[in-house]
Amino acid sequence: MSESPFPARQCALARELARLDLHALAVVPGASLAYLTGLNFHLSERPTVAFFRRNGAPVFVLPELEEGKLAKHTHNVYVCTYGEDPSIWPEAFREAARAGGLDGQRIGIESGSMRVLELRMLQEAMPGSTYPDGHEAIAAMRMCKDAHEIEQMRRAVRVAEDAMRHMLSAIEPGVTEQEAASILTARLLDAGCAPELPFPPIVAFGPSSANPHAVPGNRALRPGDLMLCDWGANVEGYFSDMTRMFAYGDPGNEVRHIVEVVEHARHAAEQTAGPGVSASDVDSAARAVIEKAGFGERFVHRTGHGVGLEIHEAPYIRDGNPMLLRPGMTFTIEPGIYLTGVTGARIEDIVAVTEDGVDTLTTLPRELVDIAAR
Amino acid sequence: MSESPFPARQCALARELARLDLHALAVVPGASLAYLTGLNFHLSERPTVAFFRRNGAPVFVLPELEEGKLAKHTHNVYVCTYGEDPSIWPEAFREAARAGGLDGQRIGIESGSMRVLELRMLQEAMPGSTYPDGHEAIAAMRMCKDAHEIEQMRRAVRVAEDAMRHMLSAIEPGVTEQEAASILTARLLDAGCAPELPFPPIVAFGPSSANPHAVPGNRALRPGDLMLCDWGANVEGYFSDMTRMFAYGDPGNEVRHIVEVVEHARHAAEQTAGPGVSASDVDSAARAVIEKAGFGERFVHRTGHGVGLEIHEAPYIRDGNPMLLRPGMTFTIEPGIYLTGVTGARIEDIVAVTEDGVDTLTTLPRELVDIAAR
Repeated sequence: MSESPFPARQCALARELARLDLHALAVVPGASLAYLTGLNFHLSERPTVAFFRRNGAPVFVLPELEEGKLAKHTHNVYVCTYGEDPSIWPEAFREAARAGGLDGQRIGIESGSMRVLELRMLQEAMPGSTYPDGHEAIAAMRMCKDAHEIEQMRRAVRVAEDAMRHMLSAIEPGVTEQEAASILTARLLDAGCAPELPFPPIVAFGPSSANPHAVPGNRALRPGDLMLCDWGANVEGYFSDMTRMFAYGDPGNEVRHIVEVVEHARHAAEQTAGPGVSASDVDSAARAVIEKAGFGERFVHRTGHGVGLEIHEAPYIRDGNPMLLRPGMTFTIEPGIYLTGVTGARIEDIVAVTEDGVDTLTTLPRELVDIAAR
Repeated sequence: MSESPFPARQCALARELARLDLHALAVVPGASLAYLTGLNFHLSERPTVAFFRRNGAPVFVLPELEEGKLAKHTHNVYVCTYGEDPSIWPEAFREAARAGGLDGQRIGIESGSMRVLELRMLQEAMPGSTYPDGHEAIAAMRMCKDAHEIEQMRRAVRVAEDAMRHMLSAIEPGVTEQEAASILTARLLDAGCAPELPFPPIVAFGPSSANPHAVPGNRALRPGDLMLCDWGANVEGYFSDMTRMFAYGDPGNEVRHIVEVVEHARHAAEQTAGPGVSASDVDSAARAVIEKAGFGERFVHRTGHGVGLEIHEAPYIRDGNPMLLRPGMTFTIEPGIYLTGVTGARIEDIVAVTEDGVDTLTTLPRELVDIAAR
């Protein structure tokens, strides 16, 4: 990719702002800022806000010690910096308001990422403005990945899968969930994952697998245990996210059965997904399989979520979401069955919508693998 | 520590709420929630809010698929859950408002962590309430660590220092900043760091060290390079944070000089800090040394920041902060000199205020270490 994608993205955003009658979109550090500029700032106690305007260059407010980072990446931006004393921060926002003609306007914000800290700075400096949610102005662009973005996600899948292969060879009875998660994290970094993981890997043994968002604990692996791993990698800011089920020895008939049901559900969703299909229909395809097997009440979450520069982003693959899938959308398919206190199963892939279906980026086998039999 | 600290912390918070005339403090996933309950939730697109009330049990709003996590940790809480369709989320907040008598009240929020997403949910469900910043109600408690908390931080320092010793043995010319940062991260996990690092390690070679918040890049280490490392570990949710300077061979007189000046500044701040001393005076002690050496303009940030369950928290060690230090406060001392485009130097320790001074938790040597001479 020789040409920077950022000017075109900022232009496209300006058109969306016009369509939504927004004067600007106020963006805090995170995925949208990275998408629009390539800049990687972090949320901190010092507020940083970039105003992308419908007409005119972006206006940034940021701590002066972050200015060096800006200079390397962008030009033609108006920059308002401030020092360490919080009492002077509002003046930097007032300067931005004057420079960008931001007062008395409709300023879109991303309410899912902007903090009240930044909103109140805006309200103080631009008391005549309103602050509707403007995430929509950028969500549609971010949702449909271009070929380069999908290639980065494919690399992130490859890194995650390589790491898992290496991690499995180190797993034996006695290892705790926390230790296994640490090994997996280290192998992710060895395999080329950026230092900032999409999320800390989930490793859950036995009954813990019945908690969809389990946190690795001190439980040690025992023969016959099921092991659920949910992990992902970060390559150039793009994330992968996948879940696989392993067992150490024979976990029993019930476990094998629910893993099979989940795999059938996953397959049904994968076959259903494609351009013009609604997110809700993909969810229904998975849910119907699990309901038919009698576990409908135990599939307690949506079938999937978009993934890209954020680990959860649109499109959300849930019941009742009428959004029609379009080529370039990337999301997880991850049905699960959770028998609280007993056992759980989830299988998660990432797919990219193509012109005639989906391209499944994840490649690791989906059946229950017995790691004692290696 | 046999007894749970959480009931006492919630009681102390209730007293603070009474003092501040707040009916409740609304807390989102993060440090304050962990401090009050031991619960580790994550911010996601699904809002989670816990209302700690002046009178009565806490009220939680959270996704139903997170409820399992709650059951393990707390009892005597009122829980309002919601499913996957965002259109039903507001009803869960209205249920919380009714259950907790939250409408028409002063509800404190933490504006530095709550997103606009959650604030708007609150405003919709409790239109008669006001939402002043109430971080103060918990900041003072969190600031002064008890003996157990300081012990966790000391462990987090030990893990970070062990990881650095192992990482240094793997560094040689040709390794890139990114590779070195990945090695350091893997060694942190090997040494016992929790999967969620306080921040991705900074490794900066040569001129990059002049950027206080450098992001590791593709530059390879060359003989004569300075290497700045800023890293930390997470032990049971408590963070360490430290910076050391290394060189591969001889980085030259100027570099050696600024590292010495920075070390003198650090020492001066360490000697000054103690109970009853203001944060501003600690900053001034470091700043005076650097100013006297002629680099005052190049020390572009505050001398330090509090650290604990968050990597940046009160007390902030900056010019003009009148806050008086108290026993149990833990913060960094990290003066720096940044010669933009040329070279930089920073040395960072963590100290805990004692009855008569400070206890410096970090122990790695502070002089410039030549790693080629090992």
